[in-house]
Amino acid sequence: MLSESPPKRSLNIGNINANVKEAKYAVRGELAIKSEQYRAQLAKGEGKDLPFDTVIAANIGNPQQLDQKPITFFRQVTSLLENPLLLEHEDVLKNGLGYKKDVIARAKTLLKDVKSVGAYSQSQGAPGIRKSVAKFIEKRDGYPAEPDNIYLCAGASSGVNCLMNIICATPNTGVLVPIPQYPLYTATLALLNAKVVPYYLNEENAWGTNIDGIRDALKKAQSEGIDVRAVVVINPGNPTGASLQPQNINSVLELCAEEKLVMLADEVYQTNIFEGEFHSFKKGLRDLQKSEKNKDGKFDNVELASLHSISKGMVGECGHRGGYYEMVGFDKEVVAQIYKFVSIMLCPPVIGQCIVEMMVNPPSEGDASYPLYREEYDGIMSGLYSRAQALYKAFSEMEGVSCQSPQGSMYLFPTITLPEKAVAAAKEKGKGPDEYYCLRLLDATGICIVPGSGFGQKEGTLHFRTTFLAPGTEWVGRITKFHKEFLDEYR
Amino acid sequence: MLSESPPKRSLNIGNINANVKEAKYAVRGELAIKSEQYRAQLAKGEGKDLPFDTVIAANIGNPQQLDQKPITFFRQVTSLLENPLLLEHEDVLKNGLGYKKDVIARAKTLLKDVKSVGAYSQSQGAPGIRKSVAKFIEKRDGYPAEPDNIYLCAGASSGVNCLMNIICATPNTGVLVPIPQYPLYTATLALLNAKVVPYYLNEENAWGTNIDGIRDALKKAQSEGIDVRAVVVINPGNPTGASLQPQNINSVLELCAEEKLVMLADEVYQTNIFEGEFHSFKKGLRDLQKSEKNKDGKFDNVELASLHSISKGMVGECGHRGGYYEMVGFDKEVVAQIYKFVSIMLCPPVIGQCIVEMMVNPPSEGDASYPLYREEYDGIMSGLYSRAQALYKAFSEMEGVSCQSPQGSMYLFPTITLPEKAVAAAKEKGKGPDEYYCLRLLDATGICIVPGSGFGQKEGTLHFRTTFLAPGTEWVGRITKFHKEFLDEYR
Repeated sequence: MLSESPPKRSLNIGNINANVKEAKYAVRGELAIKSEQYRAQLAKGEGKDLPFDTVIAANIGNPQQLDQKPITFFRQVTSLLENPLLLEHEDVLKNGLGYKKDVIARAKTLLKDVKSVGAYSQSQGAPGIRKSVAKFIEKRDGYPAEPDNIYLCAGASSGVNCLMNIICATPNTGVLVPIPQYPLYTATLALLNAKVVPYYLNEENAWGTNIDGIRDALKKAQSEGIDVRAVVVINPGNPTGASLQPQNINSVLELCAEEKLVMLADEVYQTNIFEGEFHSFKKGLRDLQKSEKNKDGKFDNVELASLHSISKGMVGECGHRGGYYEMVGFDKEVVAQIYKFVSIMLCPPVIGQCIVEMMVNPPSEGDASYPLYREEYDGIMSGLYSRAQALYKAFSEMEGVSCQSPQGSMYLFPTITLPEKAVAAAKEKGKGPDEYYCLRLLDATGICIVPGSGFGQKEGTLHFRTTFLAPGTEWVGRITKFHKEFLDEYR
Repeated sequence: MLSESPPKRSLNIGNINANVKEAKYAVRGELAIKSEQYRAQLAKGEGKDLPFDTVIAANIGNPQQLDQKPITFFRQVTSLLENPLLLEHEDVLKNGLGYKKDVIARAKTLLKDVKSVGAYSQSQGAPGIRKSVAKFIEKRDGYPAEPDNIYLCAGASSGVNCLMNIICATPNTGVLVPIPQYPLYTATLALLNAKVVPYYLNEENAWGTNIDGIRDALKKAQSEGIDVRAVVVINPGNPTGASLQPQNINSVLELCAEEKLVMLADEVYQTNIFEGEFHSFKKGLRDLQKSEKNKDGKFDNVELASLHSISKGMVGECGHRGGYYEMVGFDKEVVAQIYKFVSIMLCPPVIGQCIVEMMVNPPSEGDASYPLYREEYDGIMSGLYSRAQALYKAFSEMEGVSCQSPQGSMYLFPTITLPEKAVAAAKEKGKGPDEYYCLRLLDATGICIVPGSGFGQKEGTLHFRTTFLAPGTEWVGRITKFHKEFLDEYR
């Protein structure tokens, strides 16, 4: 070009932060945006030509968007936290509105701690709430926990963002990330211009963590000069649903001890377990520290950050943005920097902090609200289980689809085999085959799922992730019908 | 050293992200942490030896921590959003609890938009709430606004963080930042490894924006090879309280048009105005675009992002983490990247989004809740005004202190002149003189304020920032008494 017109604006796609451009987040990408457009069309009554009359958002774990009811105890308490003037009418609350006395007592306790849900709390989270979290961890694991080591956060995503900001020092810093993974991890590493060091989960073995695979990935990265500093494990798995056994956990912790890696344990699905029980990394670490294996003290300084959230489990309070992380084994000076980092954003949402408190300290046997709490909790759990089973059964019967049986979390991640003609058609449209499949499914059925490429998958394999949150099973039938027609079209 | 022991941990102060170490955030720094320790001591009854019996957090604009009551309408509505089952008892709400019919109607409208406050909303914020924000801006400025251009966020801090992440492309990217400034800006630029290009506000002229100063700062930075991309203006000012006139605003916008700079207008204190009225940058830009000055279209593509928040004003809902920014003139491809960036963190807290809606669309004349809303709003406003005046008067009478009269925001930022012996004493303790003064004030009175160095100040000058949120005036007397004794000690 001989002459160029001067730029019209300061910012254009060529000069903004390249790390942002690099980041990918398929869970809310093109498909999700298109599904929102369909939803808006239907809402305006303009979707009469569409081959479906509802949009099913199976792309994201958002239970309350899909009719899961919030737990009554939590919301009765938060209603009082929002309007403490109601506490001046205890009679009306109890007799007119059915609020039990433990609801009123809890609201008073939380208000004493936070003063007002409209006030900033300490940057790290309200002290009383952090105490409750520590108690919960102690009870869960059988080992002490310190309120000072607990950081409340605006959902686990925000906690991961903070920890990664500390860890990622140079473009050469690497973090071991499972593939497939929840794309928050790769997106955050891209934003921080650090390196994803992928390790593959073992689909044949129920998507388990294969320690040899992690070691190989680490060695390969180290041989390329990458400064690997941390390993992420999502347990139970997202998108895979896998639930890890103590021996898996111990082997990863051993690697952390030997190689001086920070252990990042994403445990937000810790109550979404259908088979066996949840084993925390914290308990795994404390067990190892007490064991024979720690003769030489090699486990003493393992740095573990474990994350939990109010968005998942039977709580499902995504919109309230609440969670916490516990840090053990971290250097004090490093923790001081983490404190400063979180203080720049002032504090996590206080009402979300209060729901964290109730999640870790729900009504217990003998409390007035316990029977209803139990009933609601179990109802949500069994609903998730039966929908997971229905979906699993449908996938098992679909041609060219195979799926691991549901162990935990909120997702299934089946493998699909597509005809060559379908792969060619996708290529022609400039799409990956799994992406094309999901796009066609959305256009035909209104069901939004996420292609496996959004999470990472072994080359040559194709998957998709669907939640099993949508009520009823009618939509499962829509998938089965579409799948058959799609195969027939391209056979 | 001949031999080094192997590192015990992955992370230490020497190898973590240096940008985090670089970031400073005095508003919640050493003084704030010490004041929290005093507060905890007093709460436990252990502070009998302390020379004060209450801690006054005048370091941070946190109204509800300092006994400002939330606005009843907002909290009645949010109580219903938290527990929608209450809507099945309209009779009890109206007769037993005094909820007006507009409270119930608003709750229903908001619930229709968000479905549940426990569900993730669209990444950009709930569509109906963005519509309300657009209407508010239209009404305020007399120019159209588009819901698609509105991004809801978890407080303005989160919006600034997003915009800076897009803007800051290389270590050589610069952003013009006022000095003194709210340290969010310098901290965020440090985290992103970009350059602060400081321009000084004019203390002699009521802390006004001096366009020649900005131009000089820009030229100097450009001559050093810095790629200056944006200019931040905080209006009304934090920490200064200055409220800008249209001619100030226009001159900055002209600079943006000529030099292709993004205009970042931090307007979170837009209702905290004691003198004159608020002029928005959006109105300024639209006025210029319609004016003679735009013959050659030079204002057509000015990129303006303006931020607002529920934390300030008479709303004061800091703990709910809500706010929005409007973007006009941005390139579409850039906006798509912003959308992706915010989607990685899923969505802002939904209850905070709902309070944004009520802030921009409060009860209006004729609504059942209007009289009480008006009374509360005016009461908070006049309380702020009278405390600002009392503090201003006290400062005016203090030896070696001079202060601009309060124009807006929630702060005063007086200059202090300290005796040489005090400066020497500070140096001996390794502290800046303003920092030493604030530390001594805290130890003597329990009042926590922030040294001017936390915001930036011209070399050779000393300041501190105090909010005027704390109730009563007894604490103002504590400052006066301390100040006299401090001067006497070092005279």
